[in-house]
Amino acid sequence: MIDFRTHPSSYWHWKLSFDGPIAMLAMDVDENGGLASGYELKLNSYDLGVDIELNDAVQRLRFEHPEVKCVVIVSGKERVFCAGANIRMLAQSSHPFKVNFCKFTNETRNAMEDATRSSGQFYLTAIGGACAGGGYELALATDYIMMADDGSTSVSLPELPLLAVLPGTGGLTRLVDKRHVRRDRADFFCTTEEGVRGKRAVDWRLVDEVVPRSQLLEVAMKRAREFAARSNRQSDEAGIALRPLVRNIQDDRISYTHLKVELDRENSAATITIDGPELSAPDSIAAVRALGCDFWPLAIARELEDAILHLRTNEDTIRTWVFRTRGESRFVKSYDRLLLDRSDNWLIREITLYLKRTLKRIDVSSRSIFSLIEPGSCFHGTLFELALASDRIYMLRGTRERDEALPAKISLSAMNFGVLPMCNGLARLESRFLGEPGKLAELRARIGEDIDAELAEQMGLVSFTPDDIDWDDEVRIAIEQRAAFSSDALTGMEASLRFGGPETIESKIFARLSAWQNWIFQRPNAVGEKGALKVYGTGRRPEFDPRRV
Amino acid sequence: MIDFRTHPSSYWHWKLSFDGPIAMLAMDVDENGGLASGYELKLNSYDLGVDIELNDAVQRLRFEHPEVKCVVIVSGKERVFCAGANIRMLAQSSHPFKVNFCKFTNETRNAMEDATRSSGQFYLTAIGGACAGGGYELALATDYIMMADDGSTSVSLPELPLLAVLPGTGGLTRLVDKRHVRRDRADFFCTTEEGVRGKRAVDWRLVDEVVPRSQLLEVAMKRAREFAARSNRQSDEAGIALRPLVRNIQDDRISYTHLKVELDRENSAATITIDGPELSAPDSIAAVRALGCDFWPLAIARELEDAILHLRTNEDTIRTWVFRTRGESRFVKSYDRLLLDRSDNWLIREITLYLKRTLKRIDVSSRSIFSLIEPGSCFHGTLFELALASDRIYMLRGTRERDEALPAKISLSAMNFGVLPMCNGLARLESRFLGEPGKLAELRARIGEDIDAELAEQMGLVSFTPDDIDWDDEVRIAIEQRAAFSSDALTGMEASLRFGGPETIESKIFARLSAWQNWIFQRPNAVGEKGALKVYGTGRRPEFDPRRV
Repeated sequence: MIDFRTHPSSYWHWKLSFDGPIAMLAMDVDENGGLASGYELKLNSYDLGVDIELNDAVQRLRFEHPEVKCVVIVSGKERVFCAGANIRMLAQSSHPFKVNFCKFTNETRNAMEDATRSSGQFYLTAIGGACAGGGYELALATDYIMMADDGSTSVSLPELPLLAVLPGTGGLTRLVDKRHVRRDRADFFCTTEEGVRGKRAVDWRLVDEVVPRSQLLEVAMKRAREFAARSNRQSDEAGIALRPLVRNIQDDRISYTHLKVELDRENSAATITIDGPELSAPDSIAAVRALGCDFWPLAIARELEDAILHLRTNEDTIRTWVFRTRGESRFVKSYDRLLLDRSDNWLIREITLYLKRTLKRIDVSSRSIFSLIEPGSCFHGTLFELALASDRIYMLRGTRERDEALPAKISLSAMNFGVLPMCNGLARLESRFLGEPGKLAELRARIGEDIDAELAEQMGLVSFTPDDIDWDDEVRIAIEQRAAFSSDALTGMEASLRFGGPETIESKIFARLSAWQNWIFQRPNAVGEKGALKVYGTGRRPEFDPRRV
Repeated sequence: MIDFRTHPSSYWHWKLSFDGPIAMLAMDVDENGGLASGYELKLNSYDLGVDIELNDAVQRLRFEHPEVKCVVIVSGKERVFCAGANIRMLAQSSHPFKVNFCKFTNETRNAMEDATRSSGQFYLTAIGGACAGGGYELALATDYIMMADDGSTSVSLPELPLLAVLPGTGGLTRLVDKRHVRRDRADFFCTTEEGVRGKRAVDWRLVDEVVPRSQLLEVAMKRAREFAARSNRQSDEAGIALRPLVRNIQDDRISYTHLKVELDRENSAATITIDGPELSAPDSIAAVRALGCDFWPLAIARELEDAILHLRTNEDTIRTWVFRTRGESRFVKSYDRLLLDRSDNWLIREITLYLKRTLKRIDVSSRSIFSLIEPGSCFHGTLFELALASDRIYMLRGTRERDEALPAKISLSAMNFGVLPMCNGLARLESRFLGEPGKLAELRARIGEDIDAELAEQMGLVSFTPDDIDWDDEVRIAIEQRAAFSSDALTGMEASLRFGGPETIESKIFARLSAWQNWIFQRPNAVGEKGALKVYGTGRRPEFDPRRV
């Protein structure tokens, strides 16, 4: 079982240090610290374990270090920056593992860009030594790339010539869409094992600046201070500690403080139930700070994220996720109001951005996602985003027999109108009603209103509204049906239907690029017995099917 | 060998008839008229041969029938509209064949939308009887869908539940992005074998109108006349006949009137040489009409399109296409001027739109594409789009030894600035210089100027400019290198690097949707011995790998 929980004190592969507004994140991979046996993490190559630590560092920098306005990524090795994802690890991994690994690494890189863009915490890379494949893709996810101008430092994406696969962590998309590298230069660059260095790398927009090797660190710190000086990040408060997440796994039940997961292996489904807050939101930032990571919105963001990552990685035969909530909407409403009213505070903003990133993980999860809205639930505002992220929303009409709970109600808050966008840049409601331009204004006018099943269906906010007589059968059949379909076809269908509307760099990475990479990860030219990924390092040459498909 | 050339007089599967401004295109597939043996085209199911005829009809309607302002697609069968792509044909086809088949059918449907949007030739579908899978995707490519309101007529996309594949011809994308069907409804629809009929189909935006079966044709003709009345299509001139394309295939050489293809099987490359015109353009529309399909721009559009389709389908081990031109730029310039100056004329507009569609086929071809610009070439304006569609552009600097020809020059025309957009809606120059917003205005100021290799490189218009000493080696090595790489990885890389910038329905279909479909077409759940596509019709149930990837 792979655990995504970690802490800087137990990092194997990264060294995090601080100098006022500057954090230095040094990659210094322990060769023998691989997550599985069968490979050594030479030359600062990485596996999922290395990236779990990176993800942890990126998150903690947001919450624990409001004073940090620029993060400098460097290598802890003398001769190499980073050789990318470990090739032997890739060669020995299953297809589902590889695809899930790429998804997580993509999300970590998106989180770095989110820090730069949304939190004034600017990421910069200072490259000394060879920077290849995933190493360069890591640099591409930062917004300023510096490179030593010496004979041994270069950037490269050698995946295609060396391994017959694509750079799988956004590299191709970021080349043309973020850095606007001309397509013919990108073509040359991606087919050239040895990469590009020096002035040409700057001219081609592959890096932003080259400096003599001896001055690399010095100039990097100078640039970092310049970026920090331009940051609007609030820094007069201390950070709050992300204390260890309490999780208890027993048989088919995973429990956190506010969230529990129940696995129904027979139907390949997980029910994820989130408990709303038990009281109204605190009335001051001081009170929020006192709660720290126990503050309900932050706690559920963390628990939900961990549950998603756990289920994706360790439970890949659980094909359907079913979201439920339990609690009183009035308390959720008070929390949404606090998040919205105090969005000027850095901590409140960070929590909202964390909720945004966590919800985005749901959109790109290759699981069928249903929400069940029943009496006793609290799908308001932020929690209603769980429903909007679902492939289908079932809402029980009326009450249950032998149950005192009142009929379920949902409600909207301003959180549903753009504060928590999908990776395509749209609010989930916007994406849902692409064909009805006037709809959003209409819905906005009803913020806060408690909406019952009949009205919710009429407003297009839920998919189906069976009553108590039909509910159990209808929901059961839907889940069973899902388990009977081909997982792969569902993945392709869901990825296509979830993202109506425009595309962004992030959505292009998860759609166009990842889909092609997944295809290539299945092709004999890469993964067959004589494929490039399999024979790498053996001295044998790969054998390719010459047909262009 | 599959031939894409056909004519209504030899259609097996479609009946084309005319009633003033209305054309009726009736699908009446001959069960025994399949392109290969091993399957019968029952229930108006189709194979590539059926779509070749549809493509021919769509093209001819543009050129031969300026009077047609609305095209009504109906079924020639009593009980079924169309059952989609033939399943046995799919099951017995190779992966490259299936992918290429989907690409072509996608392009045909895009051409129908282009007729509606760009030529005032509106497409409408009138569905009587079951309309499933590719049948409904055909309807989705038209801009008005009518359906009989009876017990046996429905629309459906049963690919996922029946076959464990995706609707491969744009269906998913058009549902959410064109017709704006709500994602949860689309999810339900695409997982429901029997589809949706009657009022629900209208409420869910799956069709535009339902009418009693007995009135279907009558109301369809009424709607067609209404659409025709709103069309701005010019109709006071007679059409021009697309006479049979003259093509000669001998060994490794394919010759048309203005274009020849030379296959170098050792290096897996095809050199495609286009001859520029031998004289200036005619000086009147009357003269253009007199030339008819021998008018140079129309002739090269047809020849280039046929060469592309032939190479894609019949020469899938030819992995690199190399474009060359030969002729005098001043003549090409005169043709570009005519196309631009007389764009008010319907025929000139149709020719330009045909060039656009043909160039778009290049962008989505899974071949490495190079252009070689040498002394004696005529890469001006429209022909320079071939270079801009290439992954790399080599331009010879200076003259060749023992050759009288002057150094090569290129030049731009207004054709390069938006008249011939890619499927992402951008001019190729726009896509090339995404990172340099001022660049386009700068280039526009130099329209018509003859630009030599040195300046072209400086302006970013070409990739590499070797001189005569280096030229042969550099070009040869580049082509050899391409042949040594994995075809699949090249496909994924090129598809990612070619489309910087925004996405449209078309680009989403070719990228997101097709890439997922290609992946699924490789997965055992669909194509393995126990996969759904393989066991369909045998009475056996498919067996699925339950893992979500």
